Parts: sequence; C-alpha cells; structure tokens
Amino acid sequence: MNPVAGAPLTVNGRSYPRPGRPVVVVCIDGSEDAYHERAIADGLMPFTEAMLARGADLRGECTMPSFTNPNNLSIATGVPPAVHGICGNYFFDPATGEEVMMNAPELLRAPTVFAAFSQAGAKVAVITAKDKLRRLLGSGLAEGGICFSAEKADQLSIAENGIEKVLESTGFELPSVYSAELSELVMAAGCDVLERDRPDLMYLSLTDYIQHKHAPGSPVANRFYAMLDRYFARIDALGAILVVTADHGMNAKSDAAGDAQVVFLQDWFDERTGPGASRVILPITDPYTVHHGALGSYATVHLPAGADRSALLSELAGVDGVDTVLTREEASERFELPADRIGDLVVIAERNTALGTTPARHDISGFTEPLRSHGGLTEQRVPVLVNRGVELPAGHRLRNFDAYWIGCHLAAEKPLTK
Amino acid sequence: MNPVAGAPLTVNGRSYPRPGRPVVVVCIDGSEDAYHERAIADGLMPFTEAMLARGADLRGECTMPSFTNPNNLSIATGVPPAVHGICGNYFFDPATGEEVMMNAPELLRAPTVFAAFSQAGAKVAVITAKDKLRRLLGSGLAEGGICFSAEKADQLSIAENGIEKVLESTGFELPSVYSAELSELVMAAGCDVLERDRPDLMYLSLTDYIQHKHAPGSPVANRFYAMLDRYFARIDALGAILVVTADHGMNAKSDAAGDAQVVFLQDWFDERTGPGASRVILPITDPYTVHHGALGSYATVHLPAGADRSALLSELAGVDGVDTVLTREEASERFELPADRIGDLVVIAERNTALGTTPARHDISGFTEPLRSHGGLTEQRVPVLVNRGVELPAGHRLRNFDAYWIGCHLAAEKPLTK
Repeated sequence: MNPVAGAPLTVNGRSYPRPGRPVVVVCIDGSEDAYHERAIADGLMPFTEAMLARGADLRGECTMPSFTNPNNLSIATGVPPAVHGICGNYFFDPATGEEVMMNAPELLRAPTVFAAFSQAGAKVAVITAKDKLRRLLGSGLAEGGICFSAEKADQLSIAENGIEKVLESTGFELPSVYSAELSELVMAAGCDVLERDRPDLMYLSLTDYIQHKHAPGSPVANRFYAMLDRYFARIDALGAILVVTADHGMNAKSDAAGDAQVVFLQDWFDERTGPGASRVILPITDPYTVHHGALGSYATVHLPAGADRSALLSELAGVDGVDTVLTREEASERFELPADRIGDLVVIAERNTALGTTPARHDISGFTEPLRSHGGLTEQRVPVLVNRGVELPAGHRLRNFDAYWIGCHLAAEKPLTK
Repeated sequence: MNPVAGAPLTVNGRSYPRPGRPVVVVCIDGSEDAYHERAIADGLMPFTEAMLARGADLRGECTMPSFTNPNNLSIATGVPPAVHGICGNYFFDPATGEEVMMNAPELLRAPTVFAAFSQAGAKVAVITAKDKLRRLLGSGLAEGGICFSAEKADQLSIAENGIEKVLESTGFELPSVYSAELSELVMAAGCDVLERDRPDLMYLSLTDYIQHKHAPGSPVANRFYAMLDRYFARIDALGAILVVTADHGMNAKSDAAGDAQVVFLQDWFDERTGPGASRVILPITDPYTVHHGALGSYATVHLPAGADRSALLSELAGVDGVDTVLTREEASERFELPADRIGDLVVIAERNTALGTTPARHDISGFTEPLRSHGGLTEQRVPVLVNRGVELPAGHRLRNFDAYWIGCHLAAEKPLTK
C-alpha cells in the first residue's frame, strides 16, 4: 500500500486515513486498568511509564456484554455488536431451539478494518492467543494477509495463515492454552512480523488467563505486565503507532472470604416459569472454561410464551447481587446489541457477583484462587494507552473500538475528526 | 560471616579463602559449550559476550560419568565421585540385589563446601531446578541456610528450606518439571535471594530439559540462553563473583536421519552369560525420563560369578558404537569413581550412540525431536565462564568442580594456588 497516496478508507461508516507507518493495536484481554497502574507503580513497566508521560493515558468503554468476542470484533470493525452481530461466544436461536457458537465468519455482519485495508492493498497481520477468534478476525483478508493463533502455532501454513514456522522464528515451544506464555508468544511473533514485514495494520490479541486468576498488583500479574512492557518498548522502537487497550475489565466475583458469589438464574426462572421453560444463556461459555467456570456477570434469558416479562423483570431486579435487568428492546438500544441474538431479558450482575444457571453446571471446586470474571457494566472501563499524544474531538465518547481510528489518524498525522 | 577475618576453610583437602563478596556458581545442566557460543554469535547474549571479553572464557572437564548427580555433587564438594560417593542416579548393590537411588544424604561420603561454610557462619543459598538434587546438596547446611527446588517451590517453609513464598516474590506460577521455566524460576529466585540476603555462597543448578530436545543454535535453545544472559547480567550488577559452568555436555545420539542409535547391552550380555545373569545398570535412569528415555552413553555391568570378564570386555569393545570398556579397577582409577558402587565393567559409547538395556524398556516413540543425551567422554568438556580474569596455576587441569575454589579466591582477591 502506498502510505501517502489514496483517499481515506471508509469502513462501516467511519473514515480511516491510510497510515504512513505501522499501526499496532494490542488488546490485553481482561486488562482492568489497575493491572498496568499497579505494575507501573511497582516500577515494573518502565517503558510504559515513560510512554504515558509523553503519549496518551486514556480510559474508554468497552462494548457490552464485556466479553472477549464482542469486543474483539468491535475493535476489528470499529462498530458495536448491533452492527457486527457478535454479541457473545454463542447465542440461542429460538426458531431452531439450537445454541449457535459465534466463531464462524458467516455470523459476522460487517467487514473488519483488516479486510477493508488488505483488499485495498495494505499489509495486515492479525495474531490471537486462542484459536476461537482467529476465523472471525481473519474474515475477508486478502491473499497474503497474516492471521494465526498462538494456540495453533505448530500448524501454520502460508496458504492458510500467510506465515509459517513461527515457533522456529520466536524460539518458543508450543505453550499451553492456559498459560501466560500463550500471550507472550503473540507479542514475540508480532514483534518479529513487525520487524520483518512492516505491516500497515497489526492486531495482537492476548488471553486473560492471568487476569482471571491473579489480581492487579499480585506478583504473577505484575510479572505478566513487566513482560508486556518489554514488547511494547520493541514495538515503539520499530517506529509503529502503538495503541494498547482491552476487551474488558476484570473483577473478583467473590465475597470478602474469597467464596464465589453467584446468582443461579436457571433455578430462579424454573421456580417461576416451570422447569426448563425459560432458557438462560451465559454467553461467556466457550470451550475454554477452566479459568472462569463459565461464570460471568451477564446473562440473557428467553422466556416461554405467555410469561409475564415485566413482572419477572421487576422481581429479578430486586434479587441480591443483580444490578440491572433490561428488556430485549432496552438492552439492544442501550448497549447497541443485535436484538435477534439476545433473549427477552438481559441480566447484569453487580461488581462482585456472577450469574450462573444451576450449581451443577459450574464446577469451580478445583479453583485455587477466588473467582475473577467479567461481563457486566463494572468491567466496562478499559485503558486506551497510546505512544503519541491524542486530541479527541470535543464530547467524543471514547471506546476501545476507536483504536484503529485513533491509530490510523496518528500514523497519517491527521487530526481526529468525527 | 566476617568476610575478611578468619583463615581459609579447608574442605575435602582443598583450601577456600573466605569470600569478600558473594560467589554465585550457576550450573547450566547439559550446557555443551556450543550452546552459549552459538547464542553469542547470534547476538542473543550481549552481557555474556562482554563478560567473556573482560573475564575468563575457559573450558574444563566434568567428572565421569557425565551425568547430573555426580557432577553436581562434585561441584558442591570440590572433589570427584571417588571421594563423595555419588556416581550416578542410582547404583546396584550386589550384596542385597537391590537398586539404590543415590538421592539420600546418607549416601554422600564427603561434606559439601556449602555445609562447611554455613557451619562456619557463612550465609549459603542452594537452589535447584528438580527436587532430586535438593536433599543431597542441602546435606549438612546449618540452620538458616537456604535450600529448595523450583519443582517444589509451592511447598516451602522456613523450617525446611530457610525461605518461603518464592513463587510470590518472583511472580511465577509453579512451572512444569519439563519446562524451560523451571530453570528460569531458579535464576529469578536466585537473583532475588542475592539482592535481599547477599549470601556468601550461592549455587543455582538448572535442568537440561531444553538441551535434551534442542541443539545449539536452534531457536528454542537460543531463546533459553538469551533468558540466562539477562540473569547473569543481574548477578554481575549485584556485585557477585559469577562462575558459570555445566554438569555435562550434550550430543545427538542419533544417525544422520535422526533415528536413535542405541546399543542394547542387557540383550548383548543375556546372549553371552544367560538371561538376566548379568545386570546392566544405566545410572542416568531417574524418575524424570520423559526427555531422554533413560538412554545415556554410560553403563556399568555386574557379571555373574565365573563369567570371563576379559573376554567379554574385548568382545564388547569391538561392538559398533561402543567407545571404551574398562574393568572396575581401571574405571575407578581413571575416572576417580567409588569402586564399590560400580559394576565389574564400565561401558562408554561413542559420541552419537547411547546405551540401553533392551528395547522394550526405552520408550522414545513419543519423541518429536531426535534423541540427545550424555554420559560419555564426548560430553566431558564443559564451559567455565567467569566475570573476572582467572590465572590458573601452571599445569592445572581445570574441572567444573573447581568452580567454588576459583570463585572464593577471586572473591577474596587471592591468587589461585594449588
């Protein structure tokens, strides 16, 4: 891509100038802002500390539900789930009675910025920790685009991923999918690709394995952020615009004693609408549940015909630990969600409470640390850290999915305008 | 310990001046010298490269057999196995017909330098990767001495280990015993202890998991040595004398196609002295065999009464892949081994050959890389790298177990004398 020539690209109604240098967005999964703040305070992120002094140290909002897939796709498309359609890890289709995993590109309703730029001739590289996001984020990439997951870094091919031999080039053995090293491999591979291929756009999306287990300022969390700091420094030294954000925050979902606090919604609805008549969907559920037991702070509920929705809403809103209950219409408007992929009710828990179905379906007996999770409004604030100063338009509501909009403007040295 | 006052300590007949600054010996398990040489050539060990330019870049010999336990105990005691008694991971006691694991302190026949110094009031810290060495190396430590393994870093107590909460202080989750991270935890914990407690003597003993799987200059090996380089720099910056050595080297035990080359000795002797009459002992065997399949290049054989030892010796010496066969008497003299803990014959394989018992007892079918191992004379040369210049006495035969003798002299600013 000729970095200077050409009009800005318009993707999903937003304008992206063609960048004059690489734009690298790092999505630190589950990066509640206290994580980097504590690591900086403890002297473990010297590069980031200096970067924030000269760059931009902002906070923005993630999209609801504050889960991984909706937010990664929002960052990739620049728009909320109402537009791109991905509102969780899966949804329930009442017409067929089936639960549908939302990791197939067919379910994506909007092009990504990556697809648009790569089809316009730009070099694009997308690296994820877990493979579940790879197909969605790589959807529509032109030939030559790089897209792979660290989880499957031992199975890469030029034809499928645009790159191969990543373990060899980085010197990693294939990490466990439940490890900090999975994220480190994303960072190491990203730096290698940045140095060698100098892509116009790069996206590095990590896993929240550490954040689900370790609180901000804890030794393991601090060590993870110290590791990230070294890679941020390398990205900066390679001349890229760096935007660091998160897909969602993270909070303890436990009481002061460390015991999980969970409202079991399926049991609650079964008592009121009959066994199994209502269908409680926990869109955090995915094939990787070891670190959160499928417990988050967001649920959506499909009610049986004839149920008294407003009465149920009112009663549920008064349950201890429940923060907000909205109708489908209210939720889709307030949170910009696709109305056809949520239930009749949307339920959001309070900061330290998670939502479950029934106890038997959430085994956290093997947890050695208190439950930490996300999904609610209390995990909506995320960092937006940039290695350049950022002047937002007056009144701009900053979102994590502004990352490429900010990055492309900075890389083209153009002011940010609505 | 008063660093200046006091006469030198004599341990096992060797004189160790009292050090005026910490002496840190790092034993990189299986560190064939090509590992650090290749990593330096690839620009991945900038500190070590500079250290060797101003310090000492030496090569010495390890003790035979070139295995982990004998050499770690030689480094710890300053003397060969003939004196300290540990000549492998286990030995066969013909009197009882039992195989005896050599990880119990009762089997150690000489005090360690650590025990002698700690009993004289010095601060000593010993950190190993695997737990198998911990009890031997910690034998005789006075109260307050620090001794623990990374493998059991989640089970430490002040009473047992002289330290606790190592995972918390370093920010590690407990690593797999088969990982590079197990060694990294040793280095990280060692640096923390050095900074906080400033021990007079410290010993950091790693695992050869990486070296058994990855050749010098390979990406994974290079990344491992790049990691070590960062910790060496930190040890040096903390003002310690640093001596880096190895317990043994490492070579491929395979042909050009990558297939393991193994002489199966039990089968060979069974054909000649009758089934099970001879007893082939492979002292590399230990509870951790995943990475070498219990295949090394050294074996010792107990023959039945009446066997024609010299005829068997002559015939075996002519077998393809066998380098040297010695009688018990020859081996104990040449290699300074305890004659009562070896068999009637000692067998050493050539560089690219390993010795086994019978195929069924060595499962390497799951190996994804060609077999790499050690035990022979071809793995006897090891690096001796020091962050100060070293002037050895004329004609001195440098051994890895000179490490503390060198380190204590340098730390006391005394010339090395025999």
